Amino acid sequence: MSDYQAPLEDMNFVVNRLLDLPNFAAAIGNEDASEDLLQAVLSEANKLANQVWSPINASGDKQGVKLTQDGVKSADGFKEAYKAYADGGWSSLYFDEQYGGQGLPFSFSMPVAEMMNAANMSLGLCPMLTAGAIEAIFAHGSQSLKETYLEKMISGEWTGTMNLTEPHAGTDLAVITTTATPDGDYFRIKGQKIYITWGDHDMTDNIIHLVLAKLPNAPEGVKGISLFLVPKFLVNADGSLGEHNDAYAINVEHKLGIHASPTCVMSYGDNGGAIGYLIGQPHQGLAAMFTMMNNERLVVGLQGVGLSDRAYQGALKYARERVQCAAPGTKQRGAIIHHPDVRRMLMTMRSLTEAGRAITYMTAAQIDLSHQALDEATRGLALKRVGLLIPIVKGWCTEVAQEVTSLGVQIHGGMGFIEETGAAQHLRDARILPIYEGTTGIQALDLVGRKTLFDQGAAMAELVQQMRDDLNLHGHAVSQQHRHNMSESIDGLESCCQLLLEQAPGDVMFAGSISFDLLMLSGYVCGAWQMICSAGLVAMEENESFKANKLVTVAYYLDHMLPRFEAHRRSIIAGSDSVMAISCDDL
Amino acid sequence: MSDYQAPLEDMNFVVNRLLDLPNFAAAIGNEDASEDLLQAVLSEANKLANQVWSPINASGDKQGVKLTQDGVKSADGFKEAYKAYADGGWSSLYFDEQYGGQGLPFSFSMPVAEMMNAANMSLGLCPMLTAGAIEAIFAHGSQSLKETYLEKMISGEWTGTMNLTEPHAGTDLAVITTTATPDGDYFRIKGQKIYITWGDHDMTDNIIHLVLAKLPNAPEGVKGISLFLVPKFLVNADGSLGEHNDAYAINVEHKLGIHASPTCVMSYGDNGGAIGYLIGQPHQGLAAMFTMMNNERLVVGLQGVGLSDRAYQGALKYARERVQCAAPGTKQRGAIIHHPDVRRMLMTMRSLTEAGRAITYMTAAQIDLSHQALDEATRGLALKRVGLLIPIVKGWCTEVAQEVTSLGVQIHGGMGFIEETGAAQHLRDARILPIYEGTTGIQALDLVGRKTLFDQGAAMAELVQQMRDDLNLHGHAVSQQHRHNMSESIDGLESCCQLLLEQAPGDVMFAGSISFDLLMLSGYVCGAWQMICSAGLVAMEENESFKANKLVTVAYYLDHMLPRFEAHRRSIIAGSDSVMAISCDDL
Repeated sequence: MSDYQAPLEDMNFVVNRLLDLPNFAAAIGNEDASEDLLQAVLSEANKLANQVWSPINASGDKQGVKLTQDGVKSADGFKEAYKAYADGGWSSLYFDEQYGGQGLPFSFSMPVAEMMNAANMSLGLCPMLTAGAIEAIFAHGSQSLKETYLEKMISGEWTGTMNLTEPHAGTDLAVITTTATPDGDYFRIKGQKIYITWGDHDMTDNIIHLVLAKLPNAPEGVKGISLFLVPKFLVNADGSLGEHNDAYAINVEHKLGIHASPTCVMSYGDNGGAIGYLIGQPHQGLAAMFTMMNNERLVVGLQGVGLSDRAYQGALKYARERVQCAAPGTKQRGAIIHHPDVRRMLMTMRSLTEAGRAITYMTAAQIDLSHQALDEATRGLALKRVGLLIPIVKGWCTEVAQEVTSLGVQIHGGMGFIEETGAAQHLRDARILPIYEGTTGIQALDLVGRKTLFDQGAAMAELVQQMRDDLNLHGHAVSQQHRHNMSESIDGLESCCQLLLEQAPGDVMFAGSISFDLLMLSGYVCGAWQMICSAGLVAMEENESFKANKLVTVAYYLDHMLPRFEAHRRSIIAGSDSVMAISCDDL
Repeated sequence: MSDYQAPLEDMNFVVNRLLDLPNFAAAIGNEDASEDLLQAVLSEANKLANQVWSPINASGDKQGVKLTQDGVKSADGFKEAYKAYADGGWSSLYFDEQYGGQGLPFSFSMPVAEMMNAANMSLGLCPMLTAGAIEAIFAHGSQSLKETYLEKMISGEWTGTMNLTEPHAGTDLAVITTTATPDGDYFRIKGQKIYITWGDHDMTDNIIHLVLAKLPNAPEGVKGISLFLVPKFLVNADGSLGEHNDAYAINVEHKLGIHASPTCVMSYGDNGGAIGYLIGQPHQGLAAMFTMMNNERLVVGLQGVGLSDRAYQGALKYARERVQCAAPGTKQRGAIIHHPDVRRMLMTMRSLTEAGRAITYMTAAQIDLSHQALDEATRGLALKRVGLLIPIVKGWCTEVAQEVTSLGVQIHGGMGFIEETGAAQHLRDARILPIYEGTTGIQALDLVGRKTLFDQGAAMAELVQQMRDDLNLHGHAVSQQHRHNMSESIDGLESCCQLLLEQAPGDVMFAGSISFDLLMLSGYVCGAWQMICSAGLVAMEENESFKANKLVTVAYYLDHMLPRFEAHRRSIIAGSDSVMAISCDDL
């Protein structure tokens, strides 16, 4: 069974050095966010992840969840593990102090969320969805809703859910049929929602559902969708719980992975209509939902990093222990870690994970800057940067997690295919990542469309310039060959974006045909960018072995991972012709 | 639930045109092997695959197998489905007529095995392992063993297994501890074997185990291993079954996939020693095992092709039916198949599958030629070609199957993660392919070591020349750009092999560090080679739409898949430095 220890040294390095914590804290006017505090936070979070969440990861996978007459029963130990999380104050890290939050930067929550999700992604999903609901209520809810719900959600006493999807309306939310009918001070919600993560459970006294629905006579399409707060149990004026709302989980899905995370079919209003409260303006529900989408998508990318790291740790342990044939240059049987092909797999896992960590945390810092930078120009720049990076990080880190968790299985050989090892669970759990919160295809379309074509490549041009500046600044820390590789890959990214701007107007299929390749190309180049920055900044670290290993990991990435950009570049240049040439009926 | 129909048209095309059936049949002196016979065989096999094997694929996955006091119980319907296979004569296609075989070329069995494994890989494994046992007995068994066992195994009345692995001896068979002690005319076998596919079941009256064990005072290492035939039930002189041998399944593994295929822990000799019969010469067991390894590895590659095709069919069906947002150039909601990124995924699946089919069947034809070509020089050339191609086909087709089955899940979106869809099963089933019968790492080492360094690149040079000749012959059927791409990739393969020959002597870690990349590079280039031959040969076909679609699929492969060779080439050039630079303790 694979155990998990958070990679504290790398996490601290990324936040302290790569995010430049002192300057970053000053820029957002948050002097509490110090290196010492960070170290203390991460060290404590690791204890919870390692001692409480990780030990029930495999048992939760095996046991799964169960829908009973009293609702969904979570797996053994999950209620207690969740309570330890809430009691430890982990649910409130970056929320507003007005409602009991700790007011730390969002980027401080990245390493914490990485380790909780690495330790137990099924359980990690519950706070992740709750955070999204909190953000939506905070940004768009009425004062009364905020006062009634926020404190208990931020403290972790209650959890939250997001209800978007309906059976016929997945990516295309325009056609949802759930209705909301005015009834005095509130609304009556009727409809069915699917894929509702932690839609029901027995870990807390109440669950606050955020539900997309349509008001009577709503405009057609996405401009007619409103957002409602629908508590599982109604809340009395004094804050005590009233009766069960007309909102129930009626099924839980049998899934490939995250077995301990209940994926519910929710039914609202089977007995007259669930009571719901409008969040924000009528028909503005989708916009309200999208305010938190960046954070959610970033955290899904982060789940990919966390699972990748855990898979790496498990594979590393096995590779050290498993004795097989003699490695090259030796005559004795020895651990398989001495074989270069096993080392290749481990280094691939390691370098992709470290690159993924760097770009997710870096993007989180940009989110903080976009909200809280004291300087308005910085906020504006960060906002554009965030918009561009989110689809790259979400798409690339989750696609990469497929490869890394699969390599984790491969290193275990035949044992990897046996469920008891735990390696297969990471692969199964990871498989949802490129799907939920917008598939990779949706991220790729977002990247080519709203984030590139829409601004005529302006944000991308700024990113490319930033990469060139950073290569000038930190390139001394890598070899000339590596500087050349990086420079060439930046040129490749730039020229592909240029090609997109040129081709898209005349070829309606071009953007969609090359979107995935452009996303992956961008991901590999962004990873290389942050790895080169890491090579430059690691000189500030004291631990000699950490320094040396980081430089090798960066070199490995530039030698063996970055070249993949070229396959994507060539595929982009080939364009849409052979993608679309066979008619649908002939496929 | 995904249904399965064998791609009869492409299968017939590959055998008839790409393998050049008339000339091939003449070369091996087997005039029975005609186009008409092929078509009839494939059409009948498809009925069994589609109507009998495929319908119990998902139910078998869900139910799995069970170890009872009476041995392993197979999943519902499997006994009947296996019987239909045996009764239909499908188990005897390419075996010797002397023992009831039908004497068809091995390559005729490729499309049949592809469809049976696509329809139900769990069940397909049983005949696959039986075939391996038959080949070993046929090639190395005594006359008496052949007479007692072959006919019933070839008819499918009995099945066979291969017993190599022990808990501490996976890839490294040198250290097995199972013993064989002489006892009159036979031997007493004692020891435990793991990962024994279909090691026990209730589908047939008897199971013939082939077991690697060590004789007393055997030489150390792989030169001290012998091969034994150990029947589940002893066979009386008159052919009737005697008592249960001291050979039992004592556990079945809980696996990620192929749930309906019992993976057994076998215990031999708990009650005095299982009776076994020596196959071949003492201490020559590994050589005997390896005579069938080529076929086994090829069929595992073929399983990858079959699962890829089935995943493609399921994804295609879903993409046609699933209605979401309007595609580019349209205003109406429509099926997701109209979206270019979905089309990209489908074309990736389709082109990789067709390339995989072409190279597996082509390699099978080389196996036939290596055994049966009337001309000795042809046999010798084919034997070298087979040796080189086997690790490429096994490694590449099974790695590619990971991507293709994963894309099958991705196209299903959220539904892909729900087990009921069936897409996830293909992914889970496929995950064993790069592991069993020698991991991808082992294939890669075989390619760089025994197949390239050992002959100083001679076989590879011949292959490269063949590719160039075929490009000259068939290149007219593709665009100038595609000819250029192909030519460049062949040069890349050649230069990487040259680099291997230069670097390996001075850098003991070089071959192992680049072996995986060289295998994948070789796979993409071989796929392109056969795709270009396909483009040239498809002109002979009558079906205009098949012709047109093949040309587009070839173009897609050359546009979007072949460029990956360049990422592998660059990774190879970077060599072993950053692969091996971190010490094992520091990883």
